Amino acid sequence: MAKAYLVKSKEKRVEYGHPWIFKSDIEKIDGDFIGGDVVDVYSSKNKFLGKGFINPKSQITIRMLTYEDESIDYGFLYKRISDAWEYRKKVADPLSCRVVFAESDFLPALIVDKFSDYLVVQTLALGIDRYKEQIVDILNDIIKPAGIFERNDVPVRELEGLDQKKGYLSKEFNTKVLMVENGVKFNVDLENGQKTGFFLDQKENRASIKPFVKDAKVLDCFCHTGSFALHAGYYNAKSVLGIDISEHASQFAYENASLNGLENVCRFETANTFDKLREFYDNKERFDTIVLDPPAFTKTKGAVEGAVRGYKEINLRAMKIIESGGYLITCSCSHHVDPDLFMDIIYSSAIDAKRKVRLVEYRTQAKDHPILLASPETQYLKCAILQIV
Amino acid sequence: MAKAYLVKSKEKRVEYGHPWIFKSDIEKIDGDFIGGDVVDVYSSKNKFLGKGFINPKSQITIRMLTYEDESIDYGFLYKRISDAWEYRKKVADPLSCRVVFAESDFLPALIVDKFSDYLVVQTLALGIDRYKEQIVDILNDIIKPAGIFERNDVPVRELEGLDQKKGYLSKEFNTKVLMVENGVKFNVDLENGQKTGFFLDQKENRASIKPFVKDAKVLDCFCHTGSFALHAGYYNAKSVLGIDISEHASQFAYENASLNGLENVCRFETANTFDKLREFYDNKERFDTIVLDPPAFTKTKGAVEGAVRGYKEINLRAMKIIESGGYLITCSCSHHVDPDLFMDIIYSSAIDAKRKVRLVEYRTQAKDHPILLASPETQYLKCAILQIV
Repeated sequence: MAKAYLVKSKEKRVEYGHPWIFKSDIEKIDGDFIGGDVVDVYSSKNKFLGKGFINPKSQITIRMLTYEDESIDYGFLYKRISDAWEYRKKVADPLSCRVVFAESDFLPALIVDKFSDYLVVQTLALGIDRYKEQIVDILNDIIKPAGIFERNDVPVRELEGLDQKKGYLSKEFNTKVLMVENGVKFNVDLENGQKTGFFLDQKENRASIKPFVKDAKVLDCFCHTGSFALHAGYYNAKSVLGIDISEHASQFAYENASLNGLENVCRFETANTFDKLREFYDNKERFDTIVLDPPAFTKTKGAVEGAVRGYKEINLRAMKIIESGGYLITCSCSHHVDPDLFMDIIYSSAIDAKRKVRLVEYRTQAKDHPILLASPETQYLKCAILQIV
Repeated sequence: MAKAYLVKSKEKRVEYGHPWIFKSDIEKIDGDFIGGDVVDVYSSKNKFLGKGFINPKSQITIRMLTYEDESIDYGFLYKRISDAWEYRKKVADPLSCRVVFAESDFLPALIVDKFSDYLVVQTLALGIDRYKEQIVDILNDIIKPAGIFERNDVPVRELEGLDQKKGYLSKEFNTKVLMVENGVKFNVDLENGQKTGFFLDQKENRASIKPFVKDAKVLDCFCHTGSFALHAGYYNAKSVLGIDISEHASQFAYENASLNGLENVCRFETANTFDKLREFYDNKERFDTIVLDPPAFTKTKGAVEGAVRGYKEINLRAMKIIESGGYLITCSCSHHVDPDLFMDIIYSSAIDAKRKVRLVEYRTQAKDHPILLASPETQYLKCAILQIV
């Protein structure tokens, strides 16, 4: 097995548990290897630090798998996936949840989501992709799903020298799957939905809106397939308007509303949220509770400034059209906008909107998306519940 | 009414909603007043900013009450207390909760806690103390408690030129009150218990330990009257050991355990947590789940360094005696140790303990203790749920 020696100044981060080693972190590599191999990782002073997958084609040259001197084989993967599943059975509703959250479960670049009886798998780096068949075997053994679908149709795979693809990893099945989240029914499209079909990371945040939507006139911005909007309806909102720029999403949201018998409470409109918020203000239309769950406004460090402007604008505009004593549930899934920056944006929006604001609850991603303390990258979702006084 | 004009460089903070005006923030005061009066607050350029209680004896010279030009009278107080109560009915269990959280409810220095049918009141500044009788009237009208007790036996009153006292603000009643929190019964001593008798701010955090204590061997450090320990027992822990330096607290905790039929599951020991954690390590005694809920290690900015050492030591020692895959629920109620610093201490403890740690959930104080965005002082409780891998 090849040995990678780290640059002295970079080794502490790895020793402390950050799972990524960049090209510039590596002093030298002894021995032969090909992309996707497991290599031993050593400090500059020849201290064993652990093992990881290597891929010279990737910006992230090595992804750490373990800090022990152990074999990376079927047994290793079985233990890791089994630990991940036991954790979900403890902290989540195992009927539908994220079963494996990549680096946070010490299984770099592996995502496994469970929707009712079906699994969706992503292997987003070369090293883990090689083990795909073994992983499928293990998932079948531990979870016994009715079917498994591969959603490797994501551009990030190309940075790893992998092609994009999707398809069955089991016998074929109907990829429109009915799932239940917090008592609300959703049809999930495993084959063509965004990412793995549904954003499970907001599950606990969706449940947390319950006291703030009862009997309220609710607006759900960037509503996508209606997940927050339908929760609002289910939790007895007086009325719910969901808006999304995608007509396909709005249509899907409407179908999900019908599925729950909420088609008379929840309305959906295809529109640009920025424009609509301005329009409501001009028309003096006000809401008791607004949900802002925008897509990531930035996926790179460089674009943070623009993202900050975007978050500022929607939060400011939302605060201006909330009734006194009403609530704003505002989210950000951009990792590069960290929690402090996000709260700064909210406070600055409150100042500009001339509203006094109370933080009722600060939340992150659901517990089945644990955060690796050593890897700030694994913490990305922020959700603040605010009262606009 | 006297008018206080602010120093130009200090007025923004007040305009944005920070409720405290210090002596050095004030440029001049026009007109006569005595301590406890309501004064108008103006910017340096004669712009009306709001109204507040003045007390020249206090470090906090003015405490803001409103940003509107309105009368501070019975009607004003009624509206404020009524708003506070409506909010609790929405976000909390109104049977036992904090009804008024001072500045966060725009009623500076007023604390009202409800334990079953009884209220405990604190008026911790001169201005609000003058309105005590009106406040009692309003509470009787809105909440109709069976009795009200005053717990103004706190040194902070002396900084305001007020004497310390406690006693009935209603007809006499038995101040040992039975309350139920998350299904767990507690006897609360309204007359002699710490602060108002019980720490309501941890209520939601106590509920959040449920998945992490089931079938577990649990250690509750700084257990006081047993609130976390009893929740662990109630949520089906295998065994619970609570330790506290106060024999009186341990005895009280034992009685609360009996009250819940948990005296065979929960044991309590009078001991120093720092010593015990070292002893467990030396004796190779390990736990599945540990709760750390220490008293504030610092109440001043100056003592932060010592507090950091204290938090570091207990977290490090706890991490060393948790079984692989076990959980640490760690809290800090020191305002001067802010969330970032607290998480830094935890990460640094993990590094020194040589344990890989996952953040499962990050929590703050219960929703009946809302946080004023403009006033970082109102955010003080941190609670991190960690998995020690």
